Amino acid sequence: MSQSYIAPVELEKAYRLLNHGPTVLVSAQHGDDRNVMAAAWACALEFKPAKVTVVLDKSTKTRQLVEQSGYFTLQVPCYAQLNMTKQLGTISKLDDPQKLEHCGVELFYQKDLTSPLVSGCIAWLVCKLIPEPHNQSAHDLFIGSVVGAWADSRVFRDGHWHFQDAPKELRSLHYIAGGTFYLIGEEVKADL
Amino acid sequence: MSQSYIAPVELEKAYRLLNHGPTVLVSAQHGDDRNVMAAAWACALEFKPAKVTVVLDKSTKTRQLVEQSGYFTLQVPCYAQLNMTKQLGTISKLDDPQKLEHCGVELFYQKDLTSPLVSGCIAWLVCKLIPEPHNQSAHDLFIGSVVGAWADSRVFRDGHWHFQDAPKELRSLHYIAGGTFYLIGEEVKADL
Repeated sequence: MSQSYIAPVELEKAYRLLNHGPTVLVSAQHGDDRNVMAAAWACALEFKPAKVTVVLDKSTKTRQLVEQSGYFTLQVPCYAQLNMTKQLGTISKLDDPQKLEHCGVELFYQKDLTSPLVSGCIAWLVCKLIPEPHNQSAHDLFIGSVVGAWADSRVFRDGHWHFQDAPKELRSLHYIAGGTFYLIGEEVKADL
Repeated sequence: MSQSYIAPVELEKAYRLLNHGPTVLVSAQHGDDRNVMAAAWACALEFKPAKVTVVLDKSTKTRQLVEQSGYFTLQVPCYAQLNMTKQLGTISKLDDPQKLEHCGVELFYQKDLTSPLVSGCIAWLVCKLIPEPHNQSAHDLFIGSVVGAWADSRVFRDGHWHFQDAPKELRSLHYIAGGTFYLIGEEVKADL
């Protein structure tokens, strides 16, 4: 997959990549062990320094890798990745060690960062875990400081999403339940 | 406004009201003092017992009311409320004591609950604050246990959203920045 559309996003505007509530893919790597899972419960937490939250269940392989490595990537999958996103949220690598191959995931890396990124997504936030033992244990809630952010310039540029000018395949996914998602829709502006 | 469309939602399915990442309105009341603000950073946290997170800045009146009363309501505004939602996120009641009147907010209450609900929204989650002093002070992060949930049956019924069958005015809003929102779009289903 070509990475020619991937452009850096100012960290202070990284919250905008998550602000409209897309379903995300969470990736992490410890040594040679890596995984990706889908998650609907990710959210911005702070503008500056940019921080995010994500809920990672104790049963997931990805959570183990986040705890071991201290890093994770949140990325925004798009309509072209609908089936992959569903599968990444259904199959556990603890049951299927070949999960990533079976789901068709291709990973890449940004300079000097060891947390993997998923090819074909429309936005990526590489995050350093801010350890919060109580939140992690009592609420499965993980907080990360955003150390690098990128987006596909066909749909996010100049600090804003431009879904209306791009192919439908690049729209973000918003999960409900049972394999049903919504695509992000029409842009509207308040006039007051 | 007629409340004839408001139907209860099972607490175990209340997460579905937030799962697609809508912008919310946060309301709270202490004594006769009440307020409503818009927030993009709200998220489900747990299925059962149903819990949610919401980020409330220290500068907001609504945060004071949540801390004083121990309760808040998250509600999902719709396209018909676009300008009101923008204004509720822009004006502070600390600057304009008549904020709710100026924004055109009408409140109502569910039986035995003192946390107010905003008329015209499409979903409501009344929450009891789970006090977490560290999260509130260090991260502006508030956790609530959902004690009652309702939705507009024209767009949410049988545990699922049905945006495609309803008027566009009832679509949820997904805030980016600068008065720009996206409406939720088309329903798609994974086929794997």
